[in-house]
Amino acid sequence: MDKLAELDPIFHPKTVAVVGASADENKFGSRFLRALIDFGFKGKLFPVNRRGDQVLGLKIYPSVRDIPGPVDLADIMVPAAFVPGVLEDCLARGVKGAQIFTSGFAETGEDEGRALERQLQVIAKRGIRLIGPNCFGVYCPSGGHTLLPGGDFPRESGPVAFITQSGGYAVEFARLARGHGIRFSKVISYGNACDLNEADFLEYVAQDDETRIVAMYLEGPRDGRRFMRLVAEVARSKPVIVWKAGLTEAGARAVRSHTASLAGDEAIWQALFKQTAAIRVGSLEELADTTTAFLNLPPTTGRRVAVIGGGGGVSVAAADACDQVGLEVPPFPYHIQQKLRGILPPAGTSIRNPVDIGAPIVPPEVFRKALESAASADCVDTIIATQALHYVLAGTLGPHPAARRKFLDALIEIPAQIRDRFGKPVVIVLPIGGDEPEMLDAEKGRREIRDIYLDMSIPTYPTLERAARAVANVAHYYENAARLP
Amino acid sequence: MDKLAELDPIFHPKTVAVVGASADENKFGSRFLRALIDFGFKGKLFPVNRRGDQVLGLKIYPSVRDIPGPVDLADIMVPAAFVPGVLEDCLARGVKGAQIFTSGFAETGEDEGRALERQLQVIAKRGIRLIGPNCFGVYCPSGGHTLLPGGDFPRESGPVAFITQSGGYAVEFARLARGHGIRFSKVISYGNACDLNEADFLEYVAQDDETRIVAMYLEGPRDGRRFMRLVAEVARSKPVIVWKAGLTEAGARAVRSHTASLAGDEAIWQALFKQTAAIRVGSLEELADTTTAFLNLPPTTGRRVAVIGGGGGVSVAAADACDQVGLEVPPFPYHIQQKLRGILPPAGTSIRNPVDIGAPIVPPEVFRKALESAASADCVDTIIATQALHYVLAGTLGPHPAARRKFLDALIEIPAQIRDRFGKPVVIVLPIGGDEPEMLDAEKGRREIRDIYLDMSIPTYPTLERAARAVANVAHYYENAARLP
Repeated sequence: MDKLAELDPIFHPKTVAVVGASADENKFGSRFLRALIDFGFKGKLFPVNRRGDQVLGLKIYPSVRDIPGPVDLADIMVPAAFVPGVLEDCLARGVKGAQIFTSGFAETGEDEGRALERQLQVIAKRGIRLIGPNCFGVYCPSGGHTLLPGGDFPRESGPVAFITQSGGYAVEFARLARGHGIRFSKVISYGNACDLNEADFLEYVAQDDETRIVAMYLEGPRDGRRFMRLVAEVARSKPVIVWKAGLTEAGARAVRSHTASLAGDEAIWQALFKQTAAIRVGSLEELADTTTAFLNLPPTTGRRVAVIGGGGGVSVAAADACDQVGLEVPPFPYHIQQKLRGILPPAGTSIRNPVDIGAPIVPPEVFRKALESAASADCVDTIIATQALHYVLAGTLGPHPAARRKFLDALIEIPAQIRDRFGKPVVIVLPIGGDEPEMLDAEKGRREIRDIYLDMSIPTYPTLERAARAVANVAHYYENAARLP
Repeated sequence: MDKLAELDPIFHPKTVAVVGASADENKFGSRFLRALIDFGFKGKLFPVNRRGDQVLGLKIYPSVRDIPGPVDLADIMVPAAFVPGVLEDCLARGVKGAQIFTSGFAETGEDEGRALERQLQVIAKRGIRLIGPNCFGVYCPSGGHTLLPGGDFPRESGPVAFITQSGGYAVEFARLARGHGIRFSKVISYGNACDLNEADFLEYVAQDDETRIVAMYLEGPRDGRRFMRLVAEVARSKPVIVWKAGLTEAGARAVRSHTASLAGDEAIWQALFKQTAAIRVGSLEELADTTTAFLNLPPTTGRRVAVIGGGGGVSVAAADACDQVGLEVPPFPYHIQQKLRGILPPAGTSIRNPVDIGAPIVPPEVFRKALESAASADCVDTIIATQALHYVLAGTLGPHPAARRKFLDALIEIPAQIRDRFGKPVVIVLPIGGDEPEMLDAEKGRREIRDIYLDMSIPTYPTLERAARAVANVAHYYENAARLP
């Protein structure tokens, strides 16, 4: 069936009933309504509450049945016991989709909650598609719909879909994404998945032209076989990045009381990631880091990296970090080492790969030549270079304050130029450098530079470990995707 | 031999010759001299340079031989070829110790550098103890001596010794340490270790009353057998936290060109950490996190943790993170679950452990009761609780701005009170929450709250993963130390 057409009323509704919004502007329902208004929802909004009245300048209807004209989507936040009744109203009114934010269903582990959730499932089969319960619902900029708190989420769409069983992570990832330059086609928090589940959403975003990269947070899939079959298929054409949580004993117990699902078996998941091109990550941070990498790195991103930085201990750790995630740090051939020998002083440096440029900060012309030499090596696919700009920003190293801006500008223009000249991706590590309160100004400058780099499609990471892992995830994906029969 | 007496002239010198300081204040030698002055070195400083002249108001002596009166320590930064000559002058003058910052010795991999380093070894045997070459030397607040750049390092001593083969990490760790509330007895960057090596320094800090916790960054020990024997012995009475780098293939290659040492065999190191109470860490961050944990957590810190936070996905990840580092998250007995059920709403929460309090931020009285219930469980040794205060600081959640301070104060006083009442350590996770430039104010507030917590000996971490790992390292140490024959 065409998932796009089926779910379109949910993702691009023209009319939305907000069931549970009341005259009290501090209650969840009204705050949700305000988030939709703040976000700039373009269609019609109908607050619904048995007690009537009005809120935020809108008339409150006693029931969905009383709303004039067609309703595409119902956002439902009444207490669990009332949800089946509201859904009956929706069915009667021909509403095509509903999001049920309310919790207190199967995830409680109590008979009552489980029975209520079964009721929802039965109702869904009669002609309405459900998201939730126990979820945060959908943020879809192109449809003008957001979740709570999300009134201030970016209004522009992007190529990333995030499908998550946890509502908290929907919000956290959307926030985290800003600093990573990530924009979304859809964020979908689907909670207990009594009707629509991870497989449905994966099928949907696979067909969705807006979506180029799929990120997922999963606890226990409802429809494991179908999901795994779909992952294998979708990951051939779009990167699918999956954080599967709850695979430890304590984690599995937490999964049961969070989304009433079964976490499953580590061996099955290992097999999935081995046999498909899907990418496995282990944290929200790695999910964001890897997404940024996919957004900014080309399919030619390979596992053979040149690592450039200042301070020998850093190089050793860099080499370890690369090796541990499956990146190769090939020793440079003799002629490349000679080039580097001509640029760097003999003492306190290393020219083999990793390249130790001898100091955390070197003049732009030295940095440029080091990158040129590394990029010119045939054995190198990808360059990871550390710029310890926090020393310059904090005034500890580098030129006098008057010359600082020029010095920084000269350093920052180099990576994109090297990338374009040699056709090899360059990833920059921008260390944070210290978390004392007095380092906040330097940190402000660092975030600004990170954003300048993102504008040039140069991904940056605060540590070499995170950079290496993100590069490895991208390189492995394109390698695996090409290898599949 | 008594290492304290032998090395005292190096750590607590009364007179220091700075060999290589010149009239040019921008050169390394003069910047080093200025760092010593800025740091407030209390003894006499004698710049030495063949060309004489003066610098920073001090007369420059043409040679160490020309300095009037006894000299305890020589800090040497002349080019490699001149170092043996300077050491001869030192011997002639009865100087007891020297730090050689200069690089260009065995780490170059060239015959010339290796030969020069052998010369230093021969000279050392004639009656002078050497640190380096290719190092950053010693930062010792009680001796008034610092390294470069370290003129602004804290002047007060603390109980932590850091012994590092990398000079860059000496500086980075000292900086990082500030935000962690870590103060040092000694930081020792010893580079190529031509004379004094990791074993000597470990023996020294083991005898040193100022030192209660030992942190180490190691590439390749010079005296592996003696070092391992010492680690086993010292770790019985003082925590020894070791980051051993260079154990991957690429890492080992980087070690050779950094400090001219051999990284060794992973199996040998694994055995060391298995058979002794020494703690193994994998990054500078974990080294700092673990050191903070040792500084603030008691020997009763155990592996059975209660995990408290808001947002179910977070609980699942928390359970996974604890399990992965060897912490137990025991399900609470029925009566504790009932206590929690009385405090938390039935929907959207979890009372089993991890405890999902239902929202990232809850009122102080709810947070207090949740912590009380968890701390009262017999199956719990240690409490890890997340406070997503960044939502309050950024104004996204919590009370109106006028009531914010009071709300925060009420939340912040709880952990230490619970700890003191139940005699169980409490560790707080303070998430960063976002790295957009507009979140900097919230981040400033977060760092201030972190420091308030540190004043109460409550360690905080920005992520649950980091908190869990630090707690696990401490718990494992005290468990292992008690178990050793």
